[in-house]
Amino acid sequence: MSIVLYHHPYSRAANMIWALEEVGAPYTLRTVNLLAGEHKSPELLALNTMGKLPVITDGDAVVSETSAICMYLADRYALGRLSPALDDRERGAYLRWCVYPSAVIEPGCMAKGAGWAYKPSQAGWGSYESIVQTLDTALKNGPWLLGDRFTMADVLVGSSLRWMLRFKMIDAVDSFVAYAERLAARPALQASEAKNAAVMKELGLG
Amino acid sequence: MSIVLYHHPYSRAANMIWALEEVGAPYTLRTVNLLAGEHKSPELLALNTMGKLPVITDGDAVVSETSAICMYLADRYALGRLSPALDDRERGAYLRWCVYPSAVIEPGCMAKGAGWAYKPSQAGWGSYESIVQTLDTALKNGPWLLGDRFTMADVLVGSSLRWMLRFKMIDAVDSFVAYAERLAARPALQASEAKNAAVMKELGLG
Repeated sequence: MSIVLYHHPYSRAANMIWALEEVGAPYTLRTVNLLAGEHKSPELLALNTMGKLPVITDGDAVVSETSAICMYLADRYALGRLSPALDDRERGAYLRWCVYPSAVIEPGCMAKGAGWAYKPSQAGWGSYESIVQTLDTALKNGPWLLGDRFTMADVLVGSSLRWMLRFKMIDAVDSFVAYAERLAARPALQASEAKNAAVMKELGLG
Repeated sequence: MSIVLYHHPYSRAANMIWALEEVGAPYTLRTVNLLAGEHKSPELLALNTMGKLPVITDGDAVVSETSAICMYLADRYALGRLSPALDDRERGAYLRWCVYPSAVIEPGCMAKGAGWAYKPSQAGWGSYESIVQTLDTALKNGPWLLGDRFTMADVLVGSSLRWMLRFKMIDAVDSFVAYAERLAARPALQASEAKNAAVMKELGLG
């Protein structure tokens, strides 16, 4: 059991359980009490100077940032299954979708929700309208971002989209809702929800 | 010559020339006239629904998003040199730094510069102060993000940091300025600046 996920159910670490369940490698959860500020402890800051979750350790390797953790896990433990091989013609598209949520969907939807003024030509994430259009174009054929092939990119984009839909931070476009339903049927996602719920109960947050 | 970079010197594609020069594989530039709106043409929208540069094609593969392009190129053409092998203990740290500029530095510095109000605990990019602290901690020992080993992560973080320093969107911390100077001495970066300048001249922007 060498993979450790530093976790709290109120953080993006909640989705990393889904990623780990898809991978299927053994892992342990280490609960970090966000509400008590434990993510700012010297131990946690030594793992991630940002003082944020999720972080994983895998032996002596340390990985933070949601997209990096997911890409790492897929390549290390599920290459050719959850990530295309390095010489696969879909490798580039896969990587693009892996970085898209944190680089584009999240700042773009936050900017839209908060009414921040900016020039879409200057921001890496462009306009909210182009984000919705890009996701709809990708998802309306489906079932997954790379067509018939479910990959870790679906965990990343799916996590972000499920969150945005839940808090009405993105339009409930038909293709988004249908994609979220397909994701919700995955056993790995259901297992992660049960594990997150169990941790919440332990923490008295249930 | 199978790699094609869709490029304009006023876009993030300018930095992709640096990435390609570090890789050393043959490539061609295809100038997209941003000022004439050519990035919104049907041909370009078919490559990237976001209507943004950079985009590369490599045979029948299409890749957009700066960090994805760089990770793709390093793994495909310079594995073990510009990117750590998949089982290398630094692989996770490498991926983290590759995604850090677009997911953290750019939205964080834009938010700071524009005075956008948000909760750092909720945004993936956290607080401006934690970004500066994280970069300083990583760069003050140097010379590169992974110590003695220059990787594609330095092209990504370096491109972002050089831009932020140039437009005073990040504090000119000593370690940042020294890192930018080390980067500026790299022949690949110098070659990319010459190529960008030549395209600007062709376009009458010199």
